[in-house]
Amino acid sequence: MEYNLLDKINHPCDLKNLTNEQLSELCGEIRSFLINTISKTGGHLASNLGTVELTVAMHKVFDCPEDKFIFDVGHQCYTHKLLTNRKDRFETLRKKDGISGFPKPSESEYDSFISGHASTSISAAYGIAKAFELQNKKNYAVAMIGDGAFTGGEAYEALNNAGRSKTRLIVILNHNDMSISKNVGAFARYLSTIRSKPSYLKLKSIVEKILRHIPVIGKPLKRWLEDSKSTLKMLLYRSTFFEELGYTYLGPIDGHDIEQLTNVLTRAKESNSPVLIQVETIKGKGYPFAEENPGAYHAIAGFDVLNGGDNVVMSDCYSNVIGSEITRLADENEKICAITAAMKYGTGLHTFYAAHKERFFDVGIAEGHAVTFAGGLASQGLIPVFCVYSSFLQRGYDQIIHDLAINNKHVVLCVDRAGIVGEDGETHQGVFDVAFLSHIPRVIVYSPEGYDEAKLCLNKAINQDNGVVAVKYPRGGDMRGHNLSISTNFSYVDNNTNMLLISYGRIFTNCFKAVESLETQSVKLSLLKLTQISPLEKSMLDIALSYEKIFFVEEGIKTGGIGEQLCATITAMGYKGSFCTIAIENTFVKQGDVPSILADLHLDAKSIEKYILQEM
Amino acid sequence: MEYNLLDKINHPCDLKNLTNEQLSELCGEIRSFLINTISKTGGHLASNLGTVELTVAMHKVFDCPEDKFIFDVGHQCYTHKLLTNRKDRFETLRKKDGISGFPKPSESEYDSFISGHASTSISAAYGIAKAFELQNKKNYAVAMIGDGAFTGGEAYEALNNAGRSKTRLIVILNHNDMSISKNVGAFARYLSTIRSKPSYLKLKSIVEKILRHIPVIGKPLKRWLEDSKSTLKMLLYRSTFFEELGYTYLGPIDGHDIEQLTNVLTRAKESNSPVLIQVETIKGKGYPFAEENPGAYHAIAGFDVLNGGDNVVMSDCYSNVIGSEITRLADENEKICAITAAMKYGTGLHTFYAAHKERFFDVGIAEGHAVTFAGGLASQGLIPVFCVYSSFLQRGYDQIIHDLAINNKHVVLCVDRAGIVGEDGETHQGVFDVAFLSHIPRVIVYSPEGYDEAKLCLNKAINQDNGVVAVKYPRGGDMRGHNLSISTNFSYVDNNTNMLLISYGRIFTNCFKAVESLETQSVKLSLLKLTQISPLEKSMLDIALSYEKIFFVEEGIKTGGIGEQLCATITAMGYKGSFCTIAIENTFVKQGDVPSILADLHLDAKSIEKYILQEM
Repeated sequence: MEYNLLDKINHPCDLKNLTNEQLSELCGEIRSFLINTISKTGGHLASNLGTVELTVAMHKVFDCPEDKFIFDVGHQCYTHKLLTNRKDRFETLRKKDGISGFPKPSESEYDSFISGHASTSISAAYGIAKAFELQNKKNYAVAMIGDGAFTGGEAYEALNNAGRSKTRLIVILNHNDMSISKNVGAFARYLSTIRSKPSYLKLKSIVEKILRHIPVIGKPLKRWLEDSKSTLKMLLYRSTFFEELGYTYLGPIDGHDIEQLTNVLTRAKESNSPVLIQVETIKGKGYPFAEENPGAYHAIAGFDVLNGGDNVVMSDCYSNVIGSEITRLADENEKICAITAAMKYGTGLHTFYAAHKERFFDVGIAEGHAVTFAGGLASQGLIPVFCVYSSFLQRGYDQIIHDLAINNKHVVLCVDRAGIVGEDGETHQGVFDVAFLSHIPRVIVYSPEGYDEAKLCLNKAINQDNGVVAVKYPRGGDMRGHNLSISTNFSYVDNNTNMLLISYGRIFTNCFKAVESLETQSVKLSLLKLTQISPLEKSMLDIALSYEKIFFVEEGIKTGGIGEQLCATITAMGYKGSFCTIAIENTFVKQGDVPSILADLHLDAKSIEKYILQEM
Repeated sequence: MEYNLLDKINHPCDLKNLTNEQLSELCGEIRSFLINTISKTGGHLASNLGTVELTVAMHKVFDCPEDKFIFDVGHQCYTHKLLTNRKDRFETLRKKDGISGFPKPSESEYDSFISGHASTSISAAYGIAKAFELQNKKNYAVAMIGDGAFTGGEAYEALNNAGRSKTRLIVILNHNDMSISKNVGAFARYLSTIRSKPSYLKLKSIVEKILRHIPVIGKPLKRWLEDSKSTLKMLLYRSTFFEELGYTYLGPIDGHDIEQLTNVLTRAKESNSPVLIQVETIKGKGYPFAEENPGAYHAIAGFDVLNGGDNVVMSDCYSNVIGSEITRLADENEKICAITAAMKYGTGLHTFYAAHKERFFDVGIAEGHAVTFAGGLASQGLIPVFCVYSSFLQRGYDQIIHDLAINNKHVVLCVDRAGIVGEDGETHQGVFDVAFLSHIPRVIVYSPEGYDEAKLCLNKAINQDNGVVAVKYPRGGDMRGHNLSISTNFSYVDNNTNMLLISYGRIFTNCFKAVESLETQSVKLSLLKLTQISPLEKSMLDIALSYEKIFFVEEGIKTGGIGEQLCATITAMGYKGSFCTIAIENTFVKQGDVPSILADLHLDAKSIEKYILQEM
């Protein structure tokens, strides 16, 4: 497809001389480009369609890369990437060795800071702005943050910290009243109040007039009023929360009007202290299917441009199976509550919401709060189940220790997207959950394989276990390739040999295949599949001790993983055999489709087989 | 000492019938009791003196334990403990097997939730309030939170989440403009603005009058005004941020006036939706030394009641040595910045503040933000050093991964209070840092022993290393009991034997003593002291491989610790010997003085010696 303007733009300098009309035309082309490309590559559609004009205006007004843009959560950076010399590589978006769906300084000098988790942009931008100040540089640090990410506490911590400074920091609050699901929380309502009150701005001029008319009101009141005049003025001029916090507040601005946007950004540049701009955008803007249902078009696989996506909601996946099972258990037990941090659909909890609205809690993008809140519910005898993506649960690490484990509260953590997640790359891989959960005293961790075992573990976690219980499962669906019996404990196949292969989770199927293939080559291994991976069970350890050679395969970071723990435990019990582990070595795992990443990590059946033959 | 009223109060019901005058007298007695007792036991003085009336009023108005009180950070719960049947045990405060300095449900049914870290109270209270609502209970959940803890993002996450609900939740904002150091941040200023504006409250009645006088102002303005009248009213009545967020705002109230307090709490009880009460208190109230210098009297050892504490500031300690060294390095290198999360004195950074104010950042109780902010500074070539207590750094776990390690930023983490901290108990022990830092790719962790080695590591971390570098050191001073050469790597004493003892950090001195004592019994062990504990160094591994029996001693949680990692690593390299570890088993470590805790954990010299003799 050919684009009249977009084709000529490779760097931000190429758009500096365009008129507002041309910029609007360019935005239309970018939208068309995004819809066409993402319909093939998959990716974050709605949030990018919502921020086309805003990003174009930013590049018109600021000088990137000297000025730094920080995109909160990062997934709305596509327009920015298009304008900064990555258009030609756009069809490699989110693919192995392709361009990232998130900002990545190693990919381009125009990207200033990695982001992928929410609510970090103001902190990073404030750090950059302070560095500019200390180095006497006149550049700008601009954070673009949605109202969804604004529900995360770190955004407020940064806002609070920067607000009292005299640092040149520009925060653009992209208000679309959506994060991934419909936005929640009092703050979002507050923003909408500001928006919905045109009379609010008029008010200032009205009160001005009152103040000018004071003489006619009578003397005693006049005196009172003159005393209070400055206070009254202050009250009305410093009237938003942001102004109270020390920000020059500009807005609300129509986020799809290039002229308004360039004007307000230009005005923001003139300030020598923090500025907050409230920009009103429509998520999915310009693509009717996405405008109508931005949640479904948040992060999607490929789709048909003309008819929209049939495949935008994945039905056969762990998230939905777990979500439905929690709902079923809650039908029978009114103590069960469900919590999500702004991921009602992603975690499959929409079914719970439909059935038990009063016991469903979307707390915003606020994993730390979610964990403590769960502890509060549990302290009164309820059974909270917090469904959360593995990499986002990292935000609740301290709270799991402090508010659940030390407090000894019975809370179930459904750790979704555990293991390799694929295209979202380093920031989203769920490879640390075992390491950070298993060392917390009293925490039980299950890593079931397949839907049936996942449901079994969930039932035990909710109805039989005590304390903190985590059930972890991968993104996507049941890929189990064997018929071993299911268990919440472990499954063992004794093949009458001195070599044992131990693994857990979905990767066990690859181990099973490797062992099958080895058997055809007359190499025999017994198999042990752990379902409860922490704490390690005595009877399982006894089995391991009876072997001479153990292979351990783990889809998670090696350091602090179950392999190391098991090796040390049986060694202390007297094990003298060999112990070899395949796990993720000391590195962050890049983007790509799951099978190729697993192969790169030597976690596919072929590599496991090869490794065993080598080490034998 | 005898107390006229306090002696008769064992349970909250005993004060229900006291008059306000008697309650005021009781408060005087409680203050006197607290000053006398804490002067002997040590503990948190200033914050407890500030909240005597508030706590008494809470017990007068609410029915604890059916109503639940959540004390944020927890250390201001002493008056509550006095009134709930723990007066007689008060001299055991913070001692081994004694009563805790923090709320502890296992100690009393009157304590509803453990707290020790900041900013969790509203989350927990909202969880409890929601549980009451779901169970049709009419009880109250009351969170008491200081403006210091209000700088932590979780407080805001909870405030935001609860604000839109119609749940009966009472938040008492204890405003004393101090957390541990003088409070920082824009929000604190905002609260002071509310307090300092009596005219602000008058303003409402003034504007009411204006509105009533509208007819005399002229017709066009009148019409305008009438249109806007309701908006104007709303603006003025819903005028604080808290009201915007959905809270009934009551205050500011004099926090040392029993009558005002009981009135406002009674009024709060009448609401069926969230209420926020702003209470103005003076930290250290009633003890002049503490009122003048509440920071120094925040957490103190014993002191002389008449003359105040000479010993309130510990000068000879790792914190101050590190703080001074960072300052010295910053004298020479203007890229070095220092960051604290509201612990300027505790982390020894007051010297840095005095010398390099412009490069010193107190970001509030906001560890997550601190880490990302450091990443922002580092992205522009500065070298940020974040000094933080080990157990509080748990709050920044995700940010260390997401904003530093993946981003590959050079930031130094000075992990203070690493290992056993003693009297503060479970929530404050720094026993997880090794487990949660060592599994993050690219993170270097040093655990120096003694001041000189600590300075050596700090220098290397700042001037030579790349990426995230953590230097961890314990609470208190240099206790090194040997003369081994210092190193940033490891120190090795080859005693010509087949047994090797490996350890790191301050606990190495106990290992050294154990080995010395064993030598007198003709049991010989070689010694290896690790300074760089992660990643493990090849040359050190080679030494370990040359032994037949390895003992590993670790002052940290065993699972995910260095012992497990080392055992697994050398086993994979072919080690066939035995490997025994003494570390903290799967449990939370209770309060007590450090030497007795270490003895309980078998980490003292005697226990190490005994263990080795047993396992030989």
